[in-house]
Amino acid sequence: MNREAMIEAVRAEMPERRWIHTMGVMETSIILAKRFGEDPDRAEQAAILHDVAKYWKTSRMETIIREEGLPAELLEFDKELWHAPVGAFVAEHQFAVKDIEVLDAIRFHTSGRVGMTQMDKVVCLADYMEPGRDFPGVHKIRELAEHSLEKALIAGFDSTISYLLEQGKRIFPLTVAARNDLLAVIREAEQ
Amino acid sequence: MNREAMIEAVRAEMPERRWIHTMGVMETSIILAKRFGEDPDRAEQAAILHDVAKYWKTSRMETIIREEGLPAELLEFDKELWHAPVGAFVAEHQFAVKDIEVLDAIRFHTSGRVGMTQMDKVVCLADYMEPGRDFPGVHKIRELAEHSLEKALIAGFDSTISYLLEQGKRIFPLTVAARNDLLAVIREAEQ
Repeated sequence: MNREAMIEAVRAEMPERRWIHTMGVMETSIILAKRFGEDPDRAEQAAILHDVAKYWKTSRMETIIREEGLPAELLEFDKELWHAPVGAFVAEHQFAVKDIEVLDAIRFHTSGRVGMTQMDKVVCLADYMEPGRDFPGVHKIRELAEHSLEKALIAGFDSTISYLLEQGKRIFPLTVAARNDLLAVIREAEQ
Repeated sequence: MNREAMIEAVRAEMPERRWIHTMGVMETSIILAKRFGEDPDRAEQAAILHDVAKYWKTSRMETIIREEGLPAELLEFDKELWHAPVGAFVAEHQFAVKDIEVLDAIRFHTSGRVGMTQMDKVVCLADYMEPGRDFPGVHKIRELAEHSLEKALIAGFDSTISYLLEQGKRIFPLTVAARNDLLAVIREAEQ
């Protein structure tokens, strides 16, 4: 599927305001990829597809998680997390994406993971800081992203964890593990 | 070893201000145990011993963690966490405590764990809210502790996690898992 057909198919899956967000993530992924030595075209492809399942019904996502062997622990946590691994599944099976780095960047764009690739970091961070985002701390994230993918991403995860604390919601362990791992990466680099 | 001998031996392991904190935890553990149906004498014993290894040298704690088969992942996280499992080891081997609930309450008093016992909760919460404690949110914790061990403890873990976010420090996964588990316990109870 070529870029334009993919864009049209994804756009049809979501309301206009979410498509505007997706375009923001595409644009920001390209900028971050160029800034930090990743392939902008593949980063853009992950960005196009990252929210493809965002507006699917819960039951439809749950069916894929259960029947296609996606991590079942997801079902115990906020539904906001489900569309990322389901999106990777859709990208692979419906959009015929074979690039494992693109698929993983979609799969982990909400949670992060231990050992994030450069592609994972670019797309996850772009999702936090695209121009349409407006939440406490987003300016700090954009500032940090001028120089450090890792520091900006930690600030992003911090904002997610703070939000979940405030809301009295469960914190997805993988996000904490991802943040811990990035802190360790920075500490090693600084030593 | 009788109560008085234990008190004298533990007191000798720490500076006076920490002993004052320990007395606060003893007193608060008794109050919380009575309030929430736990045995106040055994809760007090755990409280007496909970910080026995707090002022041990890092190298001495590290030796016990490595040589006695304590969870080695501890060594990757803040040293503040080490004295709890080391304290449980000391309680068992130096103070001949056999009561597994007392030992576990010492072992998990800083981190918490999934499936906390009533004794774990009492001692961990007493450590957060004893009269000498003064940090943002401690009043809220004391207020919640009037009625709910679990809600008060979640507020305690929230304060720890917020502090680690602010400080840019790694978050111990067991604390997040403990908080998630308590939230699930409350949700089930409310359904």
